[in-house]
Amino acid sequence: MQDPFLAPHHDGSPLYVPDQSPRVGDTLAVRVRVPARWGAPGRVFVRSTRDGEGHYDEARLLPGESGDDGAWSCWEAQVTAVNPTLRYRFLFEVPGADGPVLRWLNATGTARRDTPDRDDFRIDCRPAPAPWARDAVIYQVFPDRYARSSAAVPLDALPDWAVGCSWDEPVEPHGELTPRQVYGGDLDGITERLDHIRDLGATVLYLTPFFPARSNHRYDASTFDEVDPLLGGDAALVRLVDAAHARGIAVLGDLTVNHTGDAHDWFRKASADPTCEEAGFYYFSEDGTEYASWFGVPSLPKLDWSSPELRRRLVDGPESVVARWLLPPFNLDGWRIDVANMTGRHGSVDLNREVAALIRGTMDAVRPGLMLLAESTGDATDDLSGRTWDGGMTYSNLTRPLWQWLTRGYRETAGINFFGTPSAGVPRIDGDDLVATHTALASGFSWRVRSQNMTALNTHDTARAATVMVEGGAAVGLALTFLLPGLPTVFAVDEFGLGGVNGEDARTPMPWDGAGARPADRREFLADLAELRRASPALRDGAVRWLAAAPDVVVFVREHEEECFVVAAARADFGGVRVASDLLPGPWNAARPVDLGPAGATAEETAGALVISGRGPGVQVWRLPGVRTSDRT
Amino acid sequence: MQDPFLAPHHDGSPLYVPDQSPRVGDTLAVRVRVPARWGAPGRVFVRSTRDGEGHYDEARLLPGESGDDGAWSCWEAQVTAVNPTLRYRFLFEVPGADGPVLRWLNATGTARRDTPDRDDFRIDCRPAPAPWARDAVIYQVFPDRYARSSAAVPLDALPDWAVGCSWDEPVEPHGELTPRQVYGGDLDGITERLDHIRDLGATVLYLTPFFPARSNHRYDASTFDEVDPLLGGDAALVRLVDAAHARGIAVLGDLTVNHTGDAHDWFRKASADPTCEEAGFYYFSEDGTEYASWFGVPSLPKLDWSSPELRRRLVDGPESVVARWLLPPFNLDGWRIDVANMTGRHGSVDLNREVAALIRGTMDAVRPGLMLLAESTGDATDDLSGRTWDGGMTYSNLTRPLWQWLTRGYRETAGINFFGTPSAGVPRIDGDDLVATHTALASGFSWRVRSQNMTALNTHDTARAATVMVEGGAAVGLALTFLLPGLPTVFAVDEFGLGGVNGEDARTPMPWDGAGARPADRREFLADLAELRRASPALRDGAVRWLAAAPDVVVFVREHEEECFVVAAARADFGGVRVASDLLPGPWNAARPVDLGPAGATAEETAGALVISGRGPGVQVWRLPGVRTSDRT
Repeated sequence: MQDPFLAPHHDGSPLYVPDQSPRVGDTLAVRVRVPARWGAPGRVFVRSTRDGEGHYDEARLLPGESGDDGAWSCWEAQVTAVNPTLRYRFLFEVPGADGPVLRWLNATGTARRDTPDRDDFRIDCRPAPAPWARDAVIYQVFPDRYARSSAAVPLDALPDWAVGCSWDEPVEPHGELTPRQVYGGDLDGITERLDHIRDLGATVLYLTPFFPARSNHRYDASTFDEVDPLLGGDAALVRLVDAAHARGIAVLGDLTVNHTGDAHDWFRKASADPTCEEAGFYYFSEDGTEYASWFGVPSLPKLDWSSPELRRRLVDGPESVVARWLLPPFNLDGWRIDVANMTGRHGSVDLNREVAALIRGTMDAVRPGLMLLAESTGDATDDLSGRTWDGGMTYSNLTRPLWQWLTRGYRETAGINFFGTPSAGVPRIDGDDLVATHTALASGFSWRVRSQNMTALNTHDTARAATVMVEGGAAVGLALTFLLPGLPTVFAVDEFGLGGVNGEDARTPMPWDGAGARPADRREFLADLAELRRASPALRDGAVRWLAAAPDVVVFVREHEEECFVVAAARADFGGVRVASDLLPGPWNAARPVDLGPAGATAEETAGALVISGRGPGVQVWRLPGVRTSDRT
Repeated sequence: MQDPFLAPHHDGSPLYVPDQSPRVGDTLAVRVRVPARWGAPGRVFVRSTRDGEGHYDEARLLPGESGDDGAWSCWEAQVTAVNPTLRYRFLFEVPGADGPVLRWLNATGTARRDTPDRDDFRIDCRPAPAPWARDAVIYQVFPDRYARSSAAVPLDALPDWAVGCSWDEPVEPHGELTPRQVYGGDLDGITERLDHIRDLGATVLYLTPFFPARSNHRYDASTFDEVDPLLGGDAALVRLVDAAHARGIAVLGDLTVNHTGDAHDWFRKASADPTCEEAGFYYFSEDGTEYASWFGVPSLPKLDWSSPELRRRLVDGPESVVARWLLPPFNLDGWRIDVANMTGRHGSVDLNREVAALIRGTMDAVRPGLMLLAESTGDATDDLSGRTWDGGMTYSNLTRPLWQWLTRGYRETAGINFFGTPSAGVPRIDGDDLVATHTALASGFSWRVRSQNMTALNTHDTARAATVMVEGGAAVGLALTFLLPGLPTVFAVDEFGLGGVNGEDARTPMPWDGAGARPADRREFLADLAELRRASPALRDGAVRWLAAAPDVVVFVREHEEECFVVAAARADFGGVRVASDLLPGPWNAARPVDLGPAGATAEETAGALVISGRGPGVQVWRLPGVRTSDRT
């Protein structure tokens, strides 16, 4: 069987698309590299779409060693981004026994037959993210569970809906008590722990909601006008953001625009008076007795975005909620938008993109370069393709396949919520399907969006990796979130290896010294990963090309002009996985291993192939010299 | 290797989706059939999307023999079409050695790993087409080349741009003369030949444009207000449509809404006076000296659909051009919209769907059940997904792969325009890639759209199959356009087997008795195919399931409750292609061969497999009893 990794390569990274922020109408260079052993194409074209019609531009072989170094040839075409989104694929005319044959390369891989446009590569013409956003390492905090300051509200002074819990009390994963358990973490508590966050290498602090509500998760906001006094109120947020900024840490808020809580002023007014303006903010039945809500949960009434007044109050313009918290004195650096995938969608109505565009417009007007991420739990490629969201908090393309590759096994994970899939456990896939799933599910993103997606191993909405994965698997998974494209996102407590069978159970109070069990201590590991990424353009913006996949190990390379990294990630001990020498980014004798702590691997080159063996679960990284696609002389 | 055709099956046909015209909010039954040998799923689910969020409905095994006949099991879920387009895929939980594993089925096939939403099946909630439209067999006529009546304008009385040609003069495929050659066919000529069209079994006559212009193709309309006097004027169109309707033949017009001719009144006014209303119909440069045009051809200025007045005049409302020709006295039965894929798209502007919706709205107001087809030469799945177009005149999913399978060879087809692909000839693919390409490119269509797409072997915009394909290949291709889903579309002259190296060359005058060469006579063959289709619900609306593919032969079945057809289509002599007996729609001893003229094939069942051998190019069809997915007792 032919090596499935012997194939031409392109992705949207700077190595292949030097202009990373084209504007509509610009002509830009688009490159593809072809392994000599795959075949020498007679001609290469880029097929793009212009105003809905196919168009071909012929590529030329680049001159010099960049164009053909013996192992690889590099071709470049000049392609015009006629429309806001440039869609394109490559066509190779390759000699065959009965005359030339056609081969294609799109975002899903190579094909020997025609392919649908929906699998094409895509480039969205919009300004590049600011460097702080582009290179972010995100640390997620669920405020009630992070830390209590000395100013925190006493547990016996909580509102009626809340049930005070001491820091070491177990979290209830299911049931009536689950949303009511309040541990009393507050924003000043987070401020006091910012050095911990900085020491992990995080550059963005993402807070789940801080608005007043009637639950510990606060996704049922009762107002968007103030910070919950239980968290310390507005002044505590100002203190937190100021202190974070002083440490070079940006702060991201969490805003629900799909629904409010039923205790929200707007909903109370709307329920009391069907003629008031706020009645138009929700989907009430004609007789006013029923209303649409998130998944039918009555405490979460769904917002009706056809209301111009709702738009004005919540998302549109400098007086809106979206703007207010980004402006002084609060100065948040962006938003993660909750349930973005359902926002504005209700039966025959779909105002989703309009609302997203309003949010983006407001943010760009407040301060360009802020971060806007869309929660979209499923396949988010359709929603995230376009000109509004920077990226998504989404699981389909990486989190979900990592869970399946690293699972303890279907039966061993019984009872774990597998992203809503109605299987009784998390089924196991092998390394080749890990690569295939990640490739297929990431292929719908532009490189830009793929790079700005949160890559989380788990969040407050999922089980914890420590529970899902084989012993040591969570460390492998965490490492991959730092070593693959995307914004690594660590959910507080991951540094101490705690588990959780679902999102609610994952919201364990932080085990500060003596405050709870610490099954692991991954602080140094995470800091090393963050530093490796910070110092490496290849890990932040290098191309990604897969080199090998066996059931228990996958190998890929991040390629960049300045340096390359080869990564072998294993879920178990493995031996003899082979990478053809000519598919490596350069001579292996220049490779230097990088120490990342857990069990590594050894690689030996013999007879035209690199043979890698090692222990697992574990990750091994090697640094190599950069790859050139152009001669800059 | 496992038989690639051993897999669960679903498509949008009535066998699997009994409700063919659900409305938003309806709950409908969705079925899937699973071969016993593929594996017995423990549980089956349908995963759909509701307001952007995934949702699972469990399927149940249908009771009785429909549910499990030993070879196949049939599962049914009740799924709600929450939004105007229902997207869904199937999830199978299948026992495995280490616990259950998950398998998926979407429109592209089965997968052992997660799949992107964009490959899901889709059902658009909109009214079903009228029976005449649903079951149409289309005959395409290029009016200048079909027939001259005694009333036709003398060739020496043509306008200045035209160069009169006698009926037997060769067509110029390229050059200055190409658009100017006028053979003088007229609408009364077509009226006189309606019996020929009816005898072929056609039920829809599709006319390329009849508006006055300055070319023989008339896609450069100088007005939309009258029928070209060269074609006989308005009265001739009334006579033609009346006579066609009298024979049960519907008539489809061809309207260009992407551009007009530069001789159009609107453009002349706009060019003369930049302040006039019509100046807003086009994309003029600020100084008024330049304007956008189709592919930069100056005689085809592009329309700017941001103009409300343009919308009113051309597409919106009962006074519009779109409406006028559908109303008495003209009574056209629908439109094929030229360059629909580019319409309304210009750089940062995309009004394409708005214009399509206006056209649809106007047509539905004039008379529900009219036919609206979009020309979209490339992969049309994105544009045709939705609620406006019934189907497309598109080539990617069937015409293009058929060309590649039946090609004479890359070198032998040098100089033929391969749908704009910059290859020097039409490269050859084998039967497995014919099936794979068709499946991949058809997978983006709802069953409805797939069934309402024109399936043309060639048109006035392409080379002729007779030139592209191996000797006898065109007949195989024609047969497949009748035997696969879609509206078979025969371009006049195909019945006499003439060739053509490009679209212009394909516009040969009709070789009526003694009026030109007839390399073949396929009239009886076409009439037989049309009658077979007319009489068979399975060929018009049966499921399609592939059974085998070898380089030179492909085998599929059309399945329906009332009857089934197994089809073997070959490009060359073949022997011993095998179909596992349990994948057939029923016991083979009930199969009866259907005589379609060209070389057939024989099939013998031995040791659990049907073995088919035969001559090629040729097509063999067998009729079998129907398949049940539900017990109606």
